[in-house]
Amino acid sequence: MIVVHKYGGSSLADLDKIKNIASHISKLSDAGEQIVVVASAMGKTTNKLIEMAKKISETPNIRELDSLMATGEQQTVALLSMALNELGKKSISLTGSQAGITTIGHHTKSRIKSVDPKIIISHLNRGKVVIVAGFQGMNQKGDITTLGRGGSDTSAVALAASLGARCEIYTDVDGIYSIDPRVYSDAKKIKYISYEEMMEMANLGAGIMETRAVELGKKYNVPIYVGESLRDHDGTLILNQDEIMEDKPITGITLNEDIFMVNIQHLPYSESLVAGIFNTLGKFELNIDMISQNITTAGTLDLSFSCFKREESLLKKAIEELKNKFEEISIEIKSDLIMISLVGIGMVSHSGVAAKVFNTLAENKIPFYHITTSEISISCTISKDHKKTATEMLAREFDL
Amino acid sequence: MIVVHKYGGSSLADLDKIKNIASHISKLSDAGEQIVVVASAMGKTTNKLIEMAKKISETPNIRELDSLMATGEQQTVALLSMALNELGKKSISLTGSQAGITTIGHHTKSRIKSVDPKIIISHLNRGKVVIVAGFQGMNQKGDITTLGRGGSDTSAVALAASLGARCEIYTDVDGIYSIDPRVYSDAKKIKYISYEEMMEMANLGAGIMETRAVELGKKYNVPIYVGESLRDHDGTLILNQDEIMEDKPITGITLNEDIFMVNIQHLPYSESLVAGIFNTLGKFELNIDMISQNITTAGTLDLSFSCFKREESLLKKAIEELKNKFEEISIEIKSDLIMISLVGIGMVSHSGVAAKVFNTLAENKIPFYHITTSEISISCTISKDHKKTATEMLAREFDL
Repeated sequence: MIVVHKYGGSSLADLDKIKNIASHISKLSDAGEQIVVVASAMGKTTNKLIEMAKKISETPNIRELDSLMATGEQQTVALLSMALNELGKKSISLTGSQAGITTIGHHTKSRIKSVDPKIIISHLNRGKVVIVAGFQGMNQKGDITTLGRGGSDTSAVALAASLGARCEIYTDVDGIYSIDPRVYSDAKKIKYISYEEMMEMANLGAGIMETRAVELGKKYNVPIYVGESLRDHDGTLILNQDEIMEDKPITGITLNEDIFMVNIQHLPYSESLVAGIFNTLGKFELNIDMISQNITTAGTLDLSFSCFKREESLLKKAIEELKNKFEEISIEIKSDLIMISLVGIGMVSHSGVAAKVFNTLAENKIPFYHITTSEISISCTISKDHKKTATEMLAREFDL
Repeated sequence: MIVVHKYGGSSLADLDKIKNIASHISKLSDAGEQIVVVASAMGKTTNKLIEMAKKISETPNIRELDSLMATGEQQTVALLSMALNELGKKSISLTGSQAGITTIGHHTKSRIKSVDPKIIISHLNRGKVVIVAGFQGMNQKGDITTLGRGGSDTSAVALAASLGARCEIYTDVDGIYSIDPRVYSDAKKIKYISYEEMMEMANLGAGIMETRAVELGKKYNVPIYVGESLRDHDGTLILNQDEIMEDKPITGITLNEDIFMVNIQHLPYSESLVAGIFNTLGKFELNIDMISQNITTAGTLDLSFSCFKREESLLKKAIEELKNKFEEISIEIKSDLIMISLVGIGMVSHSGVAAKVFNTLAENKIPFYHITTSEISISCTISKDHKKTATEMLAREFDL
């Protein structure tokens, strides 16, 4: 059985950690696992490289930025392979390109187009541990590319898919919890979660795995294990809903505190005006989310959406342009709200989940403002001050 | 006219230096030069990477070491290309492999097998400055390889050869001097020097350019300019002897203080014994040089050779094995000698150069011990204490 292990930057932050991972992999290999390791850059290396680039240019050329950033992972995999060799374990490091990973799309956020696993397989067949630089590949022009946020997870799942392998994502948390344990210490660890729920939770701000990687897992039906490095296998397994027996309406709660809510009020009703507003926002490449629109009794529009606090400067520019273009609109930014979301594939078959959510909040005197729903999630904004109570009450209600 | 510029690590030691080089290149490009830049790793990067590897393993796997070290140059070229882009100058960075450099031979000391310049040419034709990572290439297995000491010079000359270009090596000295100016401050800068003399001087310890790069220049008749970065063109040009008009017997003096002289005395005369001694030395891959052998009047052999001080630990192991194998021999290591060498292609046509050298030394009461000669050089060992006097007297005698 081939297993793809992925180790993140914090698991490989220094040379001692690299040696520990090497020794762990060596033991598993001795026990018969055929192992492909996908490694990220050591610790904060990628950030340091980006800082250097920013000192050269405010907006560094992205082809060159990719080539620069890719060196981080190349260094880790070479060092990890040396460490395995030092332990007497045959191994070989490969860059994304050497590993057969072809990408398409823009530099710094490319997507994996295809994986040709024949080089990896030939090394596995010669008894080697194969160590692949995550986060990177090569496009058809022969340029080095990177995959953007969470790219190493995507590399790992894509390699697992091409090898018909299991994928194991090792990180510094010991699995996926129904609620962030830093917020709700009684939160339960989830043993099994469906791809859909995991994607929804990732989208809604639970920072453990990137959506794209989970999506790829779903597409190619790759079982993805998420757990702590060097620990027992008591983490979380992400798989198809069909394979999960448990039947709960809600699997997890996520909190997103990194948001501004933008309210645009008393707009004269006009589709072209609304479209114009979103065109302008789109031009600035703002990540906007949780859009809701209501028609008031007066026949005007109330429009609101959330956007990330980290994109504040972009948002301000966008709003300035909006105000210039559409003089009639009034815009308010609220920074004292958080988004609380309940995710669960069971929601589809359990009716009355939304009612139960709103009842629970109301009984505890927690006002909620904007509401959006998807097939498997309900999100609403509440005041920051109610974060703890709302989480606890909802967790108790849905047995999380 | 295509020109290959090579910048060493000290010219690119920090981001400000990289920006300065970018601005210099940009101006030359505006003035019409088609420029290919070969860059080394920034400052001490390569040493730092080797240190990391040594912390993982005393003898790191050399394939992985190559892949690790190659990231240094990849980083520099990406940053330099960003800096050019920032100045509005179109440019592209290429790894050794992307630039079409194929290597053969062992990892960490590969040789360039061939250069396919078509990618470089296509970028030049589109008006770009092309920036190539020095010191590296890819072997036929697709592994990243490095070229060993002075590898970036070799990359630059090989690219120049494949492009029919001139090669300009920019460094932190302003040219090649007849004698190291730190030893003899009146030393003259050499305007033209032949490939042969330059190779001999490099071999004899003048640390400016690696022999291999000069050899390659000779083979493909690439004119090589050596001078200081960002300065006027008043350095040294290395070219064919035919193109040099000047007719002096001696072009330069080199001093090598990094040597031990090993004397083996009173050996019974036997070819197989001498061969056995060199076989043993060869097994330890010691760089031995300046071998001299004399038959004494008593019919025994005196044998001596020089070897690098930096290889002391290897030498000690070799001597131990020699003593075990050949119990009859007595070995003495002398560490108080230096080698002084006079190099000049003119020596071939000027008779009596050796006599003039020895006379000069004798007149100044400077004893000289071991002597070796090649077609274009005379070397002898003298005491460290006589370094200054010997250099000055010989420089005056030969007008250097």
